[in-house]
Amino acid sequence: MNTKPFLHTILSPGLLNLYDVENSIVVIIDVFRATSTIATALYNGATKVVPVASVEDCISIGKKMNAITAGERDGKIIQGLQHGNSPAEYPREFINDKTLVLTTTNGTKLLHMALESGASQVVTGSFPNLSAICAHLNKTNKNVILGCSAWKNRFNLEDTLFAGAVIAQIRDNFTIHCDSSLMAEDMYSLHKNNMYQFIRKTTHWHRLASYGLEKDLEYCVTPDIANVLPVYRHGALFTGEQR
Amino acid sequence: MNTKPFLHTILSPGLLNLYDVENSIVVIIDVFRATSTIATALYNGATKVVPVASVEDCISIGKKMNAITAGERDGKIIQGLQHGNSPAEYPREFINDKTLVLTTTNGTKLLHMALESGASQVVTGSFPNLSAICAHLNKTNKNVILGCSAWKNRFNLEDTLFAGAVIAQIRDNFTIHCDSSLMAEDMYSLHKNNMYQFIRKTTHWHRLASYGLEKDLEYCVTPDIANVLPVYRHGALFTGEQR
Repeated sequence: MNTKPFLHTILSPGLLNLYDVENSIVVIIDVFRATSTIATALYNGATKVVPVASVEDCISIGKKMNAITAGERDGKIIQGLQHGNSPAEYPREFINDKTLVLTTTNGTKLLHMALESGASQVVTGSFPNLSAICAHLNKTNKNVILGCSAWKNRFNLEDTLFAGAVIAQIRDNFTIHCDSSLMAEDMYSLHKNNMYQFIRKTTHWHRLASYGLEKDLEYCVTPDIANVLPVYRHGALFTGEQR
Repeated sequence: MNTKPFLHTILSPGLLNLYDVENSIVVIIDVFRATSTIATALYNGATKVVPVASVEDCISIGKKMNAITAGERDGKIIQGLQHGNSPAEYPREFINDKTLVLTTTNGTKLLHMALESGASQVVTGSFPNLSAICAHLNKTNKNVILGCSAWKNRFNLEDTLFAGAVIAQIRDNFTIHCDSSLMAEDMYSLHKNNMYQFIRKTTHWHRLASYGLEKDLEYCVTPDIANVLPVYRHGALFTGEQR
């Protein structure tokens, strides 16, 4: 009897409600740049990252927690917050032992949707923590939803490529009857050896590169350079090792 | 000045509302099998095809029009209708000079959504009428939305492959800043020489092939074997030549 758990990929938050979120681990994917930044901050010693939906919450919760406030809307830093959504802003010498309160256009929105839909666990993934995500999903052996944050609900390529990278590593341990997953793996196979060039074709690249963020975007598609497992517990993301 | 019209691909009816439907020609794509059947019936001489949302409407409108009623739900013929959703059921000797009233799981739903959203024109496309669609879009020179009907709002590969086939032919005449379109063209390029084999991997294949429809599905991905332009006017689809 086949007892492998199911794996599905959702290409937009607008399609999350079609899937059995309650019985699944949901991996929130926002490669450019929320989940790359979350991995980086935790890898560099942040105590936790608090994802919040609105700028107002970010400011008020940041004040209450005496934390770093950060975020972006449409790729730009927001007035009233201290920092942006670039992983480069969170080296160890700055973020170690601190709490980061983060709000972003797409990633934090999908994370809250997954929580409200009763996901059995929420983790966040991007290329910098690819292997940690794969190891966790293999070990946990539960149904998985790879949730692409997209751009204002529109499909994007970079989140899809990360879903494909995960599937390429763990496919043998899951039951995959899902065209989105087949497509994601194909797209990753097609472009994995050419990633820095390929991402220059994406709409998000054109949106963000106009702010001079090319180095940032290349960092975000580099595997395993901040290889932690961000797990959501009691309102914040902690590295998997912490309790 | 760049005056090329825009082209977008939407991967699910659930994402239609994110796009500027009012100022666009919408191509409804439901490769397995509604839009393949529509092209075939018109190619074989049907006077018109009336797409309806519900089985009840199909029966009552069919009676009023003295027309053939046909449709499927979940790939199966529905009790109360005369025919199913297979292009093979509509050869010229049967359908010539007749009206077909058709209801399907996904395609007719997206078509009605596009009409309600005020699309400037609605046409239907699948591989059997690929070149007719491309010629029309090139000639008309308006913004285009390639609308994949998907499967109960879930992304599917076969509709995406058709979007990619269209884009591969007409891309030079349009402005394409759309990750869905980049992906669709990549997927088509990757599999165009291997289509009969590749569609055997799709979830829809597994759903329909269990009813013995393999020949049907291969027909639906064969280019230009029913090369008409189905255009929606006054409640029905007519071939582009007719007035």
